Formats: sequence, structure tokens, C-alpha cells
Amino acid sequence: MRVVVPFAAEQPKTRLSSVLSPDERRTFARAMLDDVLAVVHDAGHDPVVLATAPFESDSTGNEILRDTPVVVDDRPLSLAVNSVLSETDVPVAVVMSDLPLATRESLQRLTAVDSEIVIAPGRGGGTNALVVRHADFRVDYHGVSYRDHLHVARDVGASVETVDSFRLATDVDEPTDLVEVLLHSDGDTTQWLVDAGFDLDSTGGRVGVRRD
Amino acid sequence: MRVVVPFAAEQPKTRLSSVLSPDERRTFARAMLDDVLAVVHDAGHDPVVLATAPFESDSTGNEILRDTPVVVDDRPLSLAVNSVLSETDVPVAVVMSDLPLATRESLQRLTAVDSEIVIAPGRGGGTNALVVRHADFRVDYHGVSYRDHLHVARDVGASVETVDSFRLATDVDEPTDLVEVLLHSDGDTTQWLVDAGFDLDSTGGRVGVRRD
Repeated sequence: MRVVVPFAAEQPKTRLSSVLSPDERRTFARAMLDDVLAVVHDAGHDPVVLATAPFESDSTGNEILRDTPVVVDDRPLSLAVNSVLSETDVPVAVVMSDLPLATRESLQRLTAVDSEIVIAPGRGGGTNALVVRHADFRVDYHGVSYRDHLHVARDVGASVETVDSFRLATDVDEPTDLVEVLLHSDGDTTQWLVDAGFDLDSTGGRVGVRRD
Repeated sequence: MRVVVPFAAEQPKTRLSSVLSPDERRTFARAMLDDVLAVVHDAGHDPVVLATAPFESDSTGNEILRDTPVVVDDRPLSLAVNSVLSETDVPVAVVMSDLPLATRESLQRLTAVDSEIVIAPGRGGGTNALVVRHADFRVDYHGVSYRDHLHVARDVGASVETVDSFRLATDVDEPTDLVEVLLHSDGDTTQWLVDAGFDLDSTGGRVGVRRD
């Protein structure tokens, strides 16, 4: 299956600015992209990166990323994704690039559901991963997109199901999300965090991260 | 399967104090308990409530709760749960009472895994649900309990697996967690929130809740 992976190449992950510099946020976002592309590949699918701007795709030496087509579209996310959906035969999936907890198994659970629209919700009402098997479906990532996508599916007469996955629900936006990466992932993203000096901090009441 | 549901009967959910009064937090916690007990029952299991103090079990008229045995133990959570584990034949499960997104399906996915220890991690390194099929396993909910429970399982020679469920990972502790209840649940807890005037608020950058 064709899997579109949107990627904000410029100024990614601003909500991590309290713990990462702009340069660090760029390389961290790239590590997450690498992990997601590797998992999409492992699951037997064909990824294509949908980037907001050109970016150096061979700087890390990552072979999967080097061999992955990159489409550049600087329009807002929903417009860019809908442009791809209108030009691509279904089935097609849209998987966000900030899901370092994604695994082959969780992605296969998503694609195995036999419904015209399959949604893996993110925390806070987002849509972290999506399978589209209906030609008229279009995305709208603004606001409570999970709920909106259920409505869109019904409006176009498409069957819809939701996948219950913590791994796919965990997009990494804020410092507390780094806890989940350190605990539940072992890819490039985790290695990047460990190399940058991050570790779990359970000295307070809640588990957080600290940096050396 | 015997399913132990720990319940803090006094001063529950203090991290919701910015949006709920002490009395509201008690009735809200009871609504979550009712939902969890109903789901345990629906999944074909026998719940027992492990409460920190006696509480009125028939005030809501909820039949499942009225028929559920309540064990009172005012010791810290881990001690109380381990006391039950030491007195109960395996298999036994421990499912937290603040999981209003839990469904029969998610609970059945947990209990269907054929491993001596099965863990559904919560966000932030917690252990939201647990199946124990090894007589020597004991819990320790302090700190990063998910990681600690993996270690305990290995120390006693028990096989261990993790269940990937957003529904079981979502314990309700903070105001932002109410978003998930309003979006993904339709039980007593959701009805309680709607009756109390809560609704989704997507006017800002992130989805939150507002109260009339």
C-alpha cells in the first residue's frame, strides 16, 4: 500500500523548544521520520514523504530514506494531503512522521482492518494514522480531526473503523512525550535522545525526563 | 478470571481539583469505577473492588456495583494488591478504576494474551492493567512501574508480554484527559461530564475541555 508520511521540514516540533534547540528539533524530527519510514517499509508498504520544503535526504546515510520518494508541497497539511489523495489510487494510508513508537505490528493492525476508512486516533482528538479505501474521502486535520474524519466518512458513505493502539496514538509533541519514547521504543529516536543526554526521571511524583 | 479493581474511596483524583470540587471528584471517580466494573462484567470476568475505605455501594442504584464484593484495605496500593495476589489463585488481573475508555474488546485483548504476565502500560510509565498467571509475581506501583514490572517478571522467571491499547493506556488524572473521555467513551463517566457541563473546546491551538 502507498503510505504518505507528512513531514514538517522547517521549524518542526516547536512545543519541544523548552528542552531542544532549533537545530536539535530538526535532527530529532528527522530521527522520528527515519523510524516511521523503516516501520512502514518493514510492514511491506511503500512510503512517500510529503515534505513542506526540500531537505537533505542523504545526510544520515539512512538507506530507506535515501530510497524514499519525496514530494514537496508548502501548502497547509490538509491541502497537501488532499492533493495526494486526489492523485493516488486507493488504498492509500497517511501516517504521521512523529510516531516513533509505531511498530510493524501496530501498522499491520491498522492496515489489516477491512473498512473503507480506518483511523488510529492520536491523543487530544488528532488523527495519527489513516487508511483510505474510498475515492471521495478527504482529510481535515484542523481542530478535532478524529471526530471530523468520522463525519466525513459518513458523509461520503464510507464504512469506518477505529484502531485501538497506544503506539499509534502517541505522537511526540511535548517534553512529557519523550518519556514514552524512552520506555517503549528502541529505534533511531530513542538513540538520539540517549545520545543527547536524556533519561527518565522518577524522583518527583510523576515520571518525566531529565537531561545531563 | 478474578479481576481486582483498586479504588481510592477518599480524596480521589486530586489532579482534577482545578476543574472539579472534592464532592464532584468523588462522584466522578465513582462513575469511572461503575464503567470499569460494567466492562469487566461484560468481558465475562468477576470483579472485586479493593477500596481504601468503605463507601456507599448502593447509592447509585448500579446493580453491578451492588453485587460486586468490596475488600477494604487502607494500606498503600502495592501492599494491598500484593495481599490479594498472595491470597488468590492465579490467574488474576488487576485493572485500575480510572479507565473509562476501557471496553470489552480491549479487556479481552488483554486477557487473551497467553503469557504469565501481561501488562497494559499507562502513559508515563504506569501499569494500568495487568494479568498475573505466575504465583510469585508481586506488584510495585511506585515510580516507573511498567519498567519495574518487566524486571519483576524476569526475576521470577515469568514470561511477559505487553498489550498495545490506547483505551487501556488512558487513565484519567488531569483535565486534558477529559478530552479522551468525551471523544472515545459513552458510559456513565461521559454522561457525568456532559451533565456537569463539560464539552470539547477546539477554539485554541490544542483541543481541551470547557465547562458551562
